[in-house]
Amino acid sequence: MNKVGIIMGSKSDLPVMQDAIDILKDFNIEVEVDIVSAHRTPEKLFDYGKNAHTRGIGVIIAGAGGAAHLPGMIASLSPLPVIGVPVKSSNSIDGWDSVLSILQMPGGVPVATVALNGAKNAGILAAQIIGSADEVVLNKIIDYKESLKQKVYESAKGL
Amino acid sequence: MNKVGIIMGSKSDLPVMQDAIDILKDFNIEVEVDIVSAHRTPEKLFDYGKNAHTRGIGVIIAGAGGAAHLPGMIASLSPLPVIGVPVKSSNSIDGWDSVLSILQMPGGVPVATVALNGAKNAGILAAQIIGSADEVVLNKIIDYKESLKQKVYESAKGL
Amino acid sequence: MNKVGIIMGSKSDLPVMQDAIDILKDFNIEVEVDIVSAHRTPEKLFDYGKNAHTRGIGVIIAGAGGAAHLPGMIASLSPLPVIGVPVKSSNSIDGWDSVLSILQMPGGVPVATVALNGAKNAGILAAQIIGSADEVVLNKIIDYKESLKQKVYESAKGL
Amino acid sequence: MNKVGIIMGSKSDLPVMQDAIDILKDFNIEVEVDIVSAHRTPEKLFDYGKNAHTRGIGVIIAGAGGAAHLPGMIASLSPLPVIGVPVKSSNSIDGWDSVLSILQMPGGVPVATVALNGAKNAGILAAQIIGSADEVVLNKIIDYKESLKQKVYESAKGL
Amino acid sequence: MNKVGIIMGSKSDLPVMQDAIDILKDFNIEVEVDIVSAHRTPEKLFDYGKNAHTRGIGVIIAGAGGAAHLPGMIASLSPLPVIGVPVKSSNSIDGWDSVLSILQMPGGVPVATVALNGAKNAGILAAQIIGSADEVVLNKIIDYKESLKQKVYESAKGL
Amino acid sequence: MNKVGIIMGSKSDLPVMQDAIDILKDFNIEVEVDIVSAHRTPEKLFDYGKNAHTRGIGVIIAGAGGAAHLPGMIASLSPLPVIGVPVKSSNSIDGWDSVLSILQMPGGVPVATVALNGAKNAGILAAQIIGSADEVVLNKIIDYKESLKQKVYESAKGL
Amino acid sequence: MNKVGIIMGSKSDLPVMQDAIDILKDFNIEVEVDIVSAHRTPEKLFDYGKNAHTRGIGVIIAGAGGAAHLPGMIASLSPLPVIGVPVKSSNSIDGWDSVLSILQMPGGVPVATVALNGAKNAGILAAQIIGSADEVVLNKIIDYKESLKQKVYESAKGL
Amino acid sequence: MNKVGIIMGSKSDLPVMQDAIDILKDFNIEVEVDIVSAHRTPEKLFDYGKNAHTRGIGVIIAGAGGAAHLPGMIASLSPLPVIGVPVKSSNSIDGWDSVLSILQMPGGVPVATVALNGAKNAGILAAQIIGSADEVVLNKIIDYKESLKQKVYESAKGL
Repeated sequence: MNKVGIIMGSKSDLPVMQDAIDILKDFNIEVEVDIVSAHRTPEKLFDYGKNAHTRGIGVIIAGAGGAAHLPGMIASLSPLPVIGVPVKSSNSIDGWDSVLSILQMPGGVPVATVALNGAKNAGILAAQIIGSADEVVLNKIIDYKESLKQKVYESAKGL
Repeated sequence: MNKVGIIMGSKSDLPVMQDAIDILKDFNIEVEVDIVSAHRTPEKLFDYGKNAHTRGIGVIIAGAGGAAHLPGMIASLSPLPVIGVPVKSSNSIDGWDSVLSILQMPGGVPVATVALNGAKNAGILAAQIIGSADEVVLNKIIDYKESLKQKVYESAKGL
Repeated sequence: MNKVGIIMGSKSDLPVMQDAIDILKDFNIEVEVDIVSAHRTPEKLFDYGKNAHTRGIGVIIAGAGGAAHLPGMIASLSPLPVIGVPVKSSNSIDGWDSVLSILQMPGGVPVATVALNGAKNAGILAAQIIGSADEVVLNKIIDYKESLKQKVYESAKGL
Repeated sequence: MNKVGIIMGSKSDLPVMQDAIDILKDFNIEVEVDIVSAHRTPEKLFDYGKNAHTRGIGVIIAGAGGAAHLPGMIASLSPLPVIGVPVKSSNSIDGWDSVLSILQMPGGVPVATVALNGAKNAGILAAQIIGSADEVVLNKIIDYKESLKQKVYESAKGL
Repeated sequence: MNKVGIIMGSKSDLPVMQDAIDILKDFNIEVEVDIVSAHRTPEKLFDYGKNAHTRGIGVIIAGAGGAAHLPGMIASLSPLPVIGVPVKSSNSIDGWDSVLSILQMPGGVPVATVALNGAKNAGILAAQIIGSADEVVLNKIIDYKESLKQKVYESAKGL
Repeated sequence: MNKVGIIMGSKSDLPVMQDAIDILKDFNIEVEVDIVSAHRTPEKLFDYGKNAHTRGIGVIIAGAGGAAHLPGMIASLSPLPVIGVPVKSSNSIDGWDSVLSILQMPGGVPVATVALNGAKNAGILAAQIIGSADEVVLNKIIDYKESLKQKVYESAKGL
Repeated sequence: MNKVGIIMGSKSDLPVMQDAIDILKDFNIEVEVDIVSAHRTPEKLFDYGKNAHTRGIGVIIAGAGGAAHLPGMIASLSPLPVIGVPVKSSNSIDGWDSVLSILQMPGGVPVATVALNGAKNAGILAAQIIGSADEVVLNKIIDYKESLKQKVYESAKGL
Repeated sequence: MNKVGIIMGSKSDLPVMQDAIDILKDFNIEVEVDIVSAHRTPEKLFDYGKNAHTRGIGVIIAGAGGAAHLPGMIASLSPLPVIGVPVKSSNSIDGWDSVLSILQMPGGVPVATVALNGAKNAGILAAQIIGSADEVVLNKIIDYKESLKQKVYESAKGL
């Protein structure tokens, strides 16, 4: 089974991105975490994007804030599915900048964008991508969705 | 190899969604196209979402405009990865409504959102998801990216 | 006299939605409160939407945040008037996501949308809907509006 | 059975508001149409708002564009449920002005807001409000929703 | 010399509107302060708008938040110049609602809109309107602008 | 009686600004029209702003698009009331740029902002400012408002 | 004197970017035009960014639409000043995506952003940058600004 | 080597603008700091803009909030490159006002706009402009970019 590569533009994105790491660990999917800045380490960006698919990574999750170019540049370089997490950073204009910088990719180079700060969903989506061709993981997703349901039923009892 | 299920909320979304169908055919990936309206055919929505993964579909692409609930509801019902295409419909508020209705899913239920009217990218992303576990498709993606590059080099010559 | 069904996507919406419960109790209108998540409990959503009108509910108030699909999906399933309350949740993009996800419903399936976090107004609107065919409730609305007026006159005295 | 009062701020709103008139006629619900401008005929606004409920009107639909004050002012004056239709007028800032002027009413005075130019849905919502206490109309709504469903099934066949 | 009428939709607007009162007192211009709610005291709104110009008021300043109808309705009723102050209230969508509800008045009925929470500027503008036909007040404005300049020169020295 | 100075940043703004000229002529108020560009003719801007009040102008109307600095800079230089007209120019971002550049003036330097392309209302507001201290003009405003009302009554008859 | 490198993400950006070419030719500044796509030709992007300053280029102008990563990635790779031109492309969300993707760069890596479709201003800014250390070019800028002024004076005569 | 002139509309902008001062000092580039308010000290604005290039200033950085006219007016008056810093001030509408007031300059008069509160980047951009014609400074920029890279590599080690 492929690993999931999780990268972020800055260590300050880690509190948000940790949710992706945690949920993938819950699904017993191997993750590899790194900091890759499109704007400060372009060579590392290139190496990462060009080679990820050759060393056992099957899906990439990339989180970044502001004029967030990391997910789109990785999508430019890698043939793998890239999930983008818009991070609401400190000088962001309410998060619109990172959302639009990640979402509005040109024809030919998609980024699978999730909600603002939605790293948990990025992790689940990565699991679903793996589960699309792996019945064990697919069944874990089915169980996970069942557990979400039970939690709502529980919380409704407490009203 | 899994098929890709492509659904849309209304036949009026077809001119936009056709781009997904076309690109997937270029990749020789089987598609199954249907109209499923979250708001007008909720039973069909349920059947579709509950059963898609049991009948050979590996990825779902769902396009909708306005208060676009189709991608998110399918994601609620199916364990498969769901790609959402915000469609800029006639009374849309500049497309913001469909973008936000699809993107801002709550924790636990991701939708892989692409750009406004970005059905072509939805198709490519579906191929990348399949390619994540299928080397033949992965190589087609690599070739496709190479062809994009060549077209730019050609167009630059014409300056 | 019909009851008002009040549902919300998550228990975390209760502090906002409590205003609807309180004002309806002030009007002596019976309420029934539940948690129904469009994304985590789709079966419960279906049951609720399909059957509410058969068990004495005359108006439904549904509150949700982010990509808020609960009000629109209930409106898809039920013939009753559905009032939608956009809730400003924690990772919302300033509330625009829930407002647009609830407001911009397609032709054929309306949701009566109130202001962001406007659960109190949802309760009053539900009472007005009942009062539209029930003179006792109509008169309570008239008295309520009179009381609002008196409070302003009082507060103006204090200048 | 109560009639529905349909008012609009200017005759130029009629092409949009006609959808409400048409759908209510389809439901055999009596409508009364008038032009009432909050900004140009404030006395007529007052008369209308104060007296609508005394002359057989059970629901009011008010459409207006720009800084749209008509729905909110009618809601200030009348105890009836008021449905507001934001109209995208010529110098509107993409419709945001009419949407926010109608939606964001203060606590105590709700307006049931529908989508931008959503007059058809305003008409359906008015029918649902009447249907909330009138089984004949409720059944028409149920039939109408069934007809929407059939149209989608038909259109899906044509793919 | 005419007085300035300052009204606001709720006593909770007073902390913002106090700036208008203070600056007009600095200019020795008489003010008359009241609470007039378009949505809760429509009769008082009518009386105020219809009669302000007959009892010595020459300019009206109206502040309100959310779907702010007070300035526009006063402008509907009064022949006097009306200055609108958008107030950023608690459930406002970042102030856009009050800004657009006040600014985007239809042709025929202007409101002189100032910045979000810009009550001080509303007071200065009222003084400028009076100063337009009153040389004593005009000279006070000239002196005031000179004092603003001197403060900047002072603050620059401190760098 | 004072004249009204009408200026605009470019001759391309004239089709919009003509509405201000026309309505003021209807009120028999003298206008003086000129092109003054804050960005291309800063010296003319200075002369205009510094001297308008010394040569019989009582109110200034300034229209501009994009990063519209003309109204605010005139307000910086002149003690007169300045009315700003946001013009929706060709490369504007939907008019938001000119609206915010004119509206959001800092404390001390107000601009009386009207709606996007609202030059007609700028003219009426200028007349109201003059009318605030001139009963003949005030009565013309009262008559004008009456004429607006009659037109609505006429148009309602035609329904 | 250094040349100006003008690049764009797609040949479809040329009609907008031509304004930069033309104005720089008017200033007799040498330009070098190329198509470099961040998303489709990442290797060319790298070469361009790494080497531009070594082959006589002193300023780079980069235009792109949608999730516009070209200006920011060039700024990541080159020590030269990079001017970014947001281009309003066909599926853009009103241009906001390209504006925010270019403007909101993180600390350390600036892009000098100009207005939406503002390629002419990008050209002038490039000339000003060269003129900052080259008196001949500085004087051309001074003359250019004088010519803008004269055109306004001419157009004002025609009123 | 030219100095950099750093100006701001108010002393309250200094905490943001200090980042530009600090980074330029790190590059050993001389700065000259002043407060110049477009709206309160228009004469100083004129003097500054007209004369900066005659007294050894090569680049101007101007920061302002709200309806931020300082950068654009300096660009109107000076032939030098002007860098604009949108400052998010207290009553700003989320910073959109200052961003759009600075960015959306008309053809002929560019402002090199950086991110909201991006004074550090304004300083770096000023250094790059000087470095465009000064190899010593260019090399400092190259070293600076190298140091950014090293910091990311360090932070990645700590994961």
